[in-house]
Amino acid sequence: MFTPIKNTTVSEKVIEQIKEMLSKGTLNKGDKLPSERQMAERLQVSRTSVREALKELEIMGLIESRQGEGNFIKSNFEDILFEPFSTIFLIKESNAEEILELRKVIEKGAVTLAAQRITDEELEEIKKVLDAAENSDSEDELAKLDVLLHYKIAQASKNFLLQSILNAVSSLIEASIKDIRKNIMVKEQHKDVIKKQHNSIYEALKNHDTETAENAMSNHLDFVNNEMKKSIS
Amino acid sequence: MFTPIKNTTVSEKVIEQIKEMLSKGTLNKGDKLPSERQMAERLQVSRTSVREALKELEIMGLIESRQGEGNFIKSNFEDILFEPFSTIFLIKESNAEEILELRKVIEKGAVTLAAQRITDEELEEIKKVLDAAENSDSEDELAKLDVLLHYKIAQASKNFLLQSILNAVSSLIEASIKDIRKNIMVKEQHKDVIKKQHNSIYEALKNHDTETAENAMSNHLDFVNNEMKKSIS
Repeated sequence: MFTPIKNTTVSEKVIEQIKEMLSKGTLNKGDKLPSERQMAERLQVSRTSVREALKELEIMGLIESRQGEGNFIKSNFEDILFEPFSTIFLIKESNAEEILELRKVIEKGAVTLAAQRITDEELEEIKKVLDAAENSDSEDELAKLDVLLHYKIAQASKNFLLQSILNAVSSLIEASIKDIRKNIMVKEQHKDVIKKQHNSIYEALKNHDTETAENAMSNHLDFVNNEMKKSIS
Repeated sequence: MFTPIKNTTVSEKVIEQIKEMLSKGTLNKGDKLPSERQMAERLQVSRTSVREALKELEIMGLIESRQGEGNFIKSNFEDILFEPFSTIFLIKESNAEEILELRKVIEKGAVTLAAQRITDEELEEIKKVLDAAENSDSEDELAKLDVLLHYKIAQASKNFLLQSILNAVSSLIEASIKDIRKNIMVKEQHKDVIKKQHNSIYEALKNHDTETAENAMSNHLDFVNNEMKKSIS
């Protein structure tokens, strides 16, 4: 009959107001917030409550405080999923194999949408990355170009959620299975296989052929994941 | 030549220690933490620093404080992605169409893995959900059974990351496009279409047929997403 009464603190009410302003568009990304003192005056709460609220919003990844400049609504949210994904790993609810599986799922989805939506400019940028890889022998550079290629494909999907998940996944792979990408790249025969796979993906994107693009990405990641799993175990 | 020196606060060092204990397995999910006073003594820091660290870990979704019982490492992390996904929405980096796209990507991936890994017990549970839906005319119940069905399929994928993303996505759909699922279910002709689609997915899972399962899920979500988009616009 009785349900517990939630004790809403003053700082939670401050957070609610800021969230509402974001939702209504009164506040937008990149905007500077009023000073702590001004906010405390306008909201008629203590500066401590304002400070608590701002700290909490910062931890949630919604605002950033810049030394000497004040508090801002963040302008870049591409990395927002990294922290929670890291937590899942830390708590051992997931492992490296699951993250490789997730990456395949996300990248297959992203390339399918990209094949429908990619612009000529985006195709050109991807071509440039492939050409740079063609002409490079540096392992470090090849690894970076590989990340960039997959990033640009995800961007071409025009789906921010897929992009954010892929960013988090890539960062986790970099952090947890370090140097593995490099190890895979470095073998001569692998380099050629991967270049061919990348080219197949690019050709399918250029033809706006969703099915071929999905299959090409799937084959590519089966190969890469398989090599990565060998290095993990 | 100079790089900015990061000012690591005492509470950040406390957080680092707790994270390291989680990573090493000295602390595990569900574990009770020592009292604030004990922690302050052992770490030789102020209770304020401990309190700040605990508050931060709570906001990050790693620990929960239970009234009168103390602080615990959380035992359930299924909902950990809801808050960051909500933030992406709040900040308008994404919209309802993107979330429906993401759901399709995730569920196609999940059903493919589920077709490989589903156990007889899990198949039986899914059959029970389908039978209950067959015998129900209540819109509310049908909507709940639908959510349950998709949840159980994701569970059968045995990939916690896919499950967590799907949970966040479902909660967002419930929150942002409320009552839409019910509206779709309520039309007589839709009910039958959806039941047939659900049965096709179930049959493919029973046959461990990954390709048919993926296609059946794809068709189902194309239909549902299409109906949802009509209701959004």
